[in-house]
Amino acid sequence: MMVQPVCPEVAAIMSRRKRSRTSNPGSASQRAKRDYRQVRTSLDPVNLLSADQLETIHEASLRILEEIGIEFMGVRARTAFRDAGAEVDDDSGRVRIDRELVTRALASAPAEFTLTPRNSERRMTLGGNHICTASVGGPPRVHDCVRGKRNASLADYHEILKLVQVHDVVHCTGNQPAPPLELPAGTRHLDCYHAAATLTDKCFFNTSIGSARALDGIEISRISRGIGMEEMLAAPSCLTVISVNSPRRFDSEMAEGLMTTAEYGQCSVVTPFTLMGAMTPTTLAGALSQQNAEALSGIVLTQLARPGAPVVYGSYTSNVDMRTGSPAFGTPEYARAVLASGQLARKYGLPFRCSNSASANCVDAQATWEAEMSLWACFLAHTNMVYHAAGWMEGGLCTSYEKFVLDVELLQMMVEVVQPVAMDAEQLAWEAISQVPTGGQFFDHPHTLGRYRDAFYASTLADWRNYEVWKEDGELSATDRATALWQKRLADYREPVLPADRREELDAYVARRRNEITREAQA
Amino acid sequence: MMVQPVCPEVAAIMSRRKRSRTSNPGSASQRAKRDYRQVRTSLDPVNLLSADQLETIHEASLRILEEIGIEFMGVRARTAFRDAGAEVDDDSGRVRIDRELVTRALASAPAEFTLTPRNSERRMTLGGNHICTASVGGPPRVHDCVRGKRNASLADYHEILKLVQVHDVVHCTGNQPAPPLELPAGTRHLDCYHAAATLTDKCFFNTSIGSARALDGIEISRISRGIGMEEMLAAPSCLTVISVNSPRRFDSEMAEGLMTTAEYGQCSVVTPFTLMGAMTPTTLAGALSQQNAEALSGIVLTQLARPGAPVVYGSYTSNVDMRTGSPAFGTPEYARAVLASGQLARKYGLPFRCSNSASANCVDAQATWEAEMSLWACFLAHTNMVYHAAGWMEGGLCTSYEKFVLDVELLQMMVEVVQPVAMDAEQLAWEAISQVPTGGQFFDHPHTLGRYRDAFYASTLADWRNYEVWKEDGELSATDRATALWQKRLADYREPVLPADRREELDAYVARRRNEITREAQA
Repeated sequence: MMVQPVCPEVAAIMSRRKRSRTSNPGSASQRAKRDYRQVRTSLDPVNLLSADQLETIHEASLRILEEIGIEFMGVRARTAFRDAGAEVDDDSGRVRIDRELVTRALASAPAEFTLTPRNSERRMTLGGNHICTASVGGPPRVHDCVRGKRNASLADYHEILKLVQVHDVVHCTGNQPAPPLELPAGTRHLDCYHAAATLTDKCFFNTSIGSARALDGIEISRISRGIGMEEMLAAPSCLTVISVNSPRRFDSEMAEGLMTTAEYGQCSVVTPFTLMGAMTPTTLAGALSQQNAEALSGIVLTQLARPGAPVVYGSYTSNVDMRTGSPAFGTPEYARAVLASGQLARKYGLPFRCSNSASANCVDAQATWEAEMSLWACFLAHTNMVYHAAGWMEGGLCTSYEKFVLDVELLQMMVEVVQPVAMDAEQLAWEAISQVPTGGQFFDHPHTLGRYRDAFYASTLADWRNYEVWKEDGELSATDRATALWQKRLADYREPVLPADRREELDAYVARRRNEITREAQA
Repeated sequence: MMVQPVCPEVAAIMSRRKRSRTSNPGSASQRAKRDYRQVRTSLDPVNLLSADQLETIHEASLRILEEIGIEFMGVRARTAFRDAGAEVDDDSGRVRIDRELVTRALASAPAEFTLTPRNSERRMTLGGNHICTASVGGPPRVHDCVRGKRNASLADYHEILKLVQVHDVVHCTGNQPAPPLELPAGTRHLDCYHAAATLTDKCFFNTSIGSARALDGIEISRISRGIGMEEMLAAPSCLTVISVNSPRRFDSEMAEGLMTTAEYGQCSVVTPFTLMGAMTPTTLAGALSQQNAEALSGIVLTQLARPGAPVVYGSYTSNVDMRTGSPAFGTPEYARAVLASGQLARKYGLPFRCSNSASANCVDAQATWEAEMSLWACFLAHTNMVYHAAGWMEGGLCTSYEKFVLDVELLQMMVEVVQPVAMDAEQLAWEAISQVPTGGQFFDHPHTLGRYRDAFYASTLADWRNYEVWKEDGELSATDRATALWQKRLADYREPVLPADRREELDAYVARRRNEITREAQA
């Protein structure tokens, strides 16, 4: 029993409470265990921009689309735009998109939709006040405090999948959280999809560099669910990040991935990645105008490929450190861009994606404040898809096991913050308040005893013991404790059962596609 | 020139930018240097409770005041309540306060007021969307990573005052941030006030354990300003935390301090300190009802002592860890209590006080997330006085030099987040956006070059360099860097000039009072 001296009466009471506990076997918690699988925020979204300012950004973006245009490097995308009446220049790749085309796309894009993985209890609804999260995606390196830093490998990738699976607050797997760099680049996505579909029963992000990779992901999700393509169309599973090469360029492979994803009724997350001062002007107004134009151009393309295709408004606007040129993440500028971008997504009636970002090189105070700056802004902005929600470090160059565990803690706390307040007679506790004498304590009052188990968020990472006990116990920092936690959680992992016939079909699909791709490459 | 690989084009551009810099001598920053001395938030306050729920808490509190009452242990307070028509029981000390008395007090308490220290540029306006901060107050121990842990002493206290003085974002000194425990308890407050009035030119919190200590603080502030008591009344300087012994007890000394502070027109910050599960029920609704009743009782007393006396609605409602009984700070429950309490203060038209809290035993990820949970909630709740804003650790048992520097960083970032957005033609940057080619960069565009110096928040504690450079440079964590920073800032400190006649008067006042108190104690 560890007690901080600031509250000396507690120690004596705790022992009494322990006795009371056994004499109150029926007094179970009144607070249902939090379900982290389906998260909604009860707070109103926070607005950074006035209504006028929001309209100004919107108008500036339309002007960029109409007068300057966006470069689409792929023929298929330009053809779609030309067929829809846009002004297309094949030499430069430039597509000018008028506001009517934007309005039409925004009218057909759904405001809310659900993505269903093989375990339907892990479904995600994107839109409204739903908040979903995805693990880190993409870093080429991984780090943990036991094995140190290394190139990402299939073994690491499998472990990160297991960490995704055991944490309910991580709702799906980002795109290749630890890409298996030792595997051939052309078929690596097959190994990744196969592992995600077998080691987790959650959704996972596809890699949409080109049409074929997108389609492989869709097929593998479909097979894991044991359904046909019609059903996949009606109840989609897949999502994929479509990056824009800011300023104002869509490369051919990304546009292909987007179009195939949309054609199959799966979800594109159109995300301009911009660092203010490098890929956009230094000003928030300028950066938002450009980001918004870029996002809208991709959103229009999804609706040209298939009207009604699910699409998410993505934003990733941070800034460079103007003294060194280094990218800076989790900054005040980033938090502001998140809040303002959420307003744009809501204006358009689209689900919104942002990220949990950090520049720090170790899991220290900086990593934590960068994550907190990101997550508070994400939750306040009603971010429906918090990408890189767990494990992202070093500006996206490294996946950290300790950061993953830390982020899970931060996410769970944010979920607690945004819950609605219960306020019935039981909660108001008049009887307890009137019965405890002045200067007394509530520890052994029945109202407390009936609730002590789940009254408050029970952190696994925080150490609330007093300094002396903590020191005697090894002076472990939160990062040290995170090391123990990811090891324990990997040990706790159990593979979610996949019916044998689906597993066989998956194996066969991957084997066939591996052969096809390898043969194509050799040809 | 350190550049993260994620942004490879930047390195080449930086060297060009360097050359450009000299050829653009006139292109100064368009962004005024942020003034951290006067802070306002441009965000709307965030509400956790519905209007109905807010009314329910208010009604529950009035019922507590009317039916259960509050114990005032001091005769002077009870007399004031009796004279005002409250139902007073001298045996138990219980005072029942009816709603009419509460309404009258809320009508006379000012919604906003300004506290002026000897340097009027350091004045603080409490109320509305103003956000002021005070350093940590009260911990009996101090820690830094150079000298380790120790009992607080006058030398430590002087250093913390210097850290308060050099950081504009810390607006005043909390009550004895490192109480000089080696000095006699009866006169220690004189040494503290004297040091605060000479080593800083900011406001400082008085110690209001009894009338005499409160009055000494008022006199010393008055002398430091070179004004008379009439002027002090018209333009107050002082503030003091009045704690409530929850549940529902005001000790005699605290009530005395409150009444003297109010009579002299200075500011009381009435703050019930409650840990849900120990001093209140475990439920937020119950805790808020009780906290609100306790706060209102003290607020009423200030207005009985002097109608119109400045008073702040204080809240410090956190929770215990129900598994160990330890107090837990910076929790989701704390963040929610802050948001809801801010609503109560706004309902009553009173300035609001909350705290930057942490339970952690070292300046690690936990200390940081606890501070961030506290500060985001404080800023979103329009907390007019963020107490313990810099340096608080271990649930208030230790003042940390590294945490002080970390908190300054977190505070500055929050100030940046809540600034209004500029949106004129210059900010929209149409020319820059239209001139930079697709896939190009903005680094050397004149729009960027004219802004690069102050475009973004320039952190002194963050390290945004890439992993390899950071590693080669010693792998310093943010806490390691904080150690270097507080040493540098102590070295940078310059004592703010106090006219010689005031200094003499101060010295004489302290000498006289020290003699009086010592003689009284010996008598």
